[in-house]
Amino acid sequence: MRDVAVIGVGMTKFGKYPGTVVDMMSEASLKAIEDAGTDAVESVYVANMGSGALNRQTAVASALIDNINLLGKTAAVAVENGPASGQNAVKLGYLEVASGFSDMVMVAGGEKMRAVLGSEATDFVARMAHPDAEYPHGVTLPSLAAMFARLHMHKYGVTNEDLARVAIKNQNNGMLNPYAHIHQKISLEGILLMREAIINNPIIADPLRLYDMCPVSDGAAAMILCPLEKAKEFTDTPVVIAGVGQGTDLHAVHERPNPLELQSVQYASEQAFRRAKIDRSQIDFCELHDAFTILEFAESEQAGFFDRGTAHIALKNGETEIGGKLPINPSGGLKARGHPVGATGVAQLVECTWQLRGDAGKRQVNGAERSFSINFGGFGNNVVATIMKRGDVQ
Amino acid sequence: MRDVAVIGVGMTKFGKYPGTVVDMMSEASLKAIEDAGTDAVESVYVANMGSGALNRQTAVASALIDNINLLGKTAAVAVENGPASGQNAVKLGYLEVASGFSDMVMVAGGEKMRAVLGSEATDFVARMAHPDAEYPHGVTLPSLAAMFARLHMHKYGVTNEDLARVAIKNQNNGMLNPYAHIHQKISLEGILLMREAIINNPIIADPLRLYDMCPVSDGAAAMILCPLEKAKEFTDTPVVIAGVGQGTDLHAVHERPNPLELQSVQYASEQAFRRAKIDRSQIDFCELHDAFTILEFAESEQAGFFDRGTAHIALKNGETEIGGKLPINPSGGLKARGHPVGATGVAQLVECTWQLRGDAGKRQVNGAERSFSINFGGFGNNVVATIMKRGDVQ
Repeated sequence: MRDVAVIGVGMTKFGKYPGTVVDMMSEASLKAIEDAGTDAVESVYVANMGSGALNRQTAVASALIDNINLLGKTAAVAVENGPASGQNAVKLGYLEVASGFSDMVMVAGGEKMRAVLGSEATDFVARMAHPDAEYPHGVTLPSLAAMFARLHMHKYGVTNEDLARVAIKNQNNGMLNPYAHIHQKISLEGILLMREAIINNPIIADPLRLYDMCPVSDGAAAMILCPLEKAKEFTDTPVVIAGVGQGTDLHAVHERPNPLELQSVQYASEQAFRRAKIDRSQIDFCELHDAFTILEFAESEQAGFFDRGTAHIALKNGETEIGGKLPINPSGGLKARGHPVGATGVAQLVECTWQLRGDAGKRQVNGAERSFSINFGGFGNNVVATIMKRGDVQ
Repeated sequence: MRDVAVIGVGMTKFGKYPGTVVDMMSEASLKAIEDAGTDAVESVYVANMGSGALNRQTAVASALIDNINLLGKTAAVAVENGPASGQNAVKLGYLEVASGFSDMVMVAGGEKMRAVLGSEATDFVARMAHPDAEYPHGVTLPSLAAMFARLHMHKYGVTNEDLARVAIKNQNNGMLNPYAHIHQKISLEGILLMREAIINNPIIADPLRLYDMCPVSDGAAAMILCPLEKAKEFTDTPVVIAGVGQGTDLHAVHERPNPLELQSVQYASEQAFRRAKIDRSQIDFCELHDAFTILEFAESEQAGFFDRGTAHIALKNGETEIGGKLPINPSGGLKARGHPVGATGVAQLVECTWQLRGDAGKRQVNGAERSFSINFGGFGNNVVATIMKRGDVQ
């Protein structure tokens, strides 16, 4: 397999997008093409979960390449793996280049979720729950996250304040990210005050409150991949996809032998590290899938960065802040950047690319050479992990 | 890139399936696993166009592998490329094995279209038309096919009887295929009689009538891929994926410089032949995408098997019958097997596998060594072509 590098990236401002889902993906794609300085892509992978259901637009990959005039010999296909669609699409683009089948591939992820009413978007996402064992009984992703949080908090002594600190860190990081949906600085005092005035931070699924949840967002992100050996033609700062892993788990969460074990995160992480041939201690920062605050703790522990039940202590000690030992979600994560489901995994790796190039502005992790990212689908039934590194390091 | 072989295939009876879309894909998958004699797949690709919209089931790849108990280290993802989803998923599974990333991959395609009312299924498919230039003006795939047919007929002297002969051949072939949706032998006399009694063969989009259209079907198909060098552990009759190609075209058909030119078919075919390093004359039979009768002529000409405007003459001369020089759609094609959109491309290659193994029963093409197949997305805006061959031929 050939080494594969990222030579161009682009992203829309997350939040509410005025145009169509195809316009939005086009904007991100054209930015990636401009950044790479080439549109000679042989293949386009589009990460999208629900344009058919949410936007009544099917065959979105064909619509995208038509809209940005990449026709003819350019292949195009959409990839759907729930909220893990983004990194899954990057994996497939990576495989196409690594195999030698193509020399240049674009991956674009996008989702326009604010086009439908809140309850419709929620129902659409809830349909990822098990169709017999969960959904008909009212089980949604927030409720699964709440039960998971309750158990985790009980077992490890994690408090609501600890969860709030994830939101605070990530929203504060998001203040430094011009692409983030949420630009609102919050403090622990503020969160606690809001809890008193329940209306500002209501319970969504006890113990999780509004500020424990990512927002419903529109957004798109894109990247262009080519063999590392050709990357120097296009950029002085290629970023390499060093290792990709993917794991799955039982669909119905209550069937898992230990519901606190995120087997999919474990498998995906182990595989990514094995393929990248590097060690956890070499990772300089992580972009994790904090759709719910609790997941940042759980994923960082399951991926092996912290002992079980200690991630909240590391956060309290400042270790996961941008200036800390292992910054987590310098972008602001899903909490602040937003979570347009098909876009998220691509956006995570676009952030990793910016950080590894040294282009992350005020949120830059100094000297970052290697990144780790988790893209979490469903309630952990399908997870992709991606390790990236600067092109000039081993 | 490594050579990749098919070691197991499975299919449901197409038509109306009583269970869920996941049950249906599970049945096809378990048949493929039984046929291969192994379920040690590292990755599953699911071709599906609309379970989110048609069946309100998202994250269908995760649901499938949970249902058939392929959890943990097995990755799973869904692939959507309209009616070309099936061969596109096979292409991605092929790339994963060819690259060396995985040693065994399953591809499953399925669509449950009869779960919704006819008009809803039609609208769902129509949404593939251009969202600004076509769909709002009432342009659907049948109407595009009708305009294409009218132009083709005018230019090349093709008649309604010529189109009917495609339906007759394919439905008669379908009589020999136990998996086909339509088991109804028809004759030219019968078609002509039915035309008189308009009710039995009504005009859908002039000049195309009911018998020029594929049915709306439920169905699923699956195949298991591994490196050719390992295939002998599992089967005495491996079938090799010799070449894959993909091409695209302008989304809005009226923008194409020559609407009779199917540029996507041309590119996909040329690429597949170039990668397979074989010649058109070495192909023993084709499985083409006859969603409309006219497409069988147009695709076989554009792919280079016949001169322009002569495919209908070859059919009249019996050349494309099962016993002819170049049998086309020995399975019965989409016309008789049916067209559950996500399943079709996989089903085409399952048929090719059966034929190349010599396992196609009464519809066997004698001595078939190499096959060619087209999976046609939208109205030709996204096409995949796949060439397969017996493992024991060059």
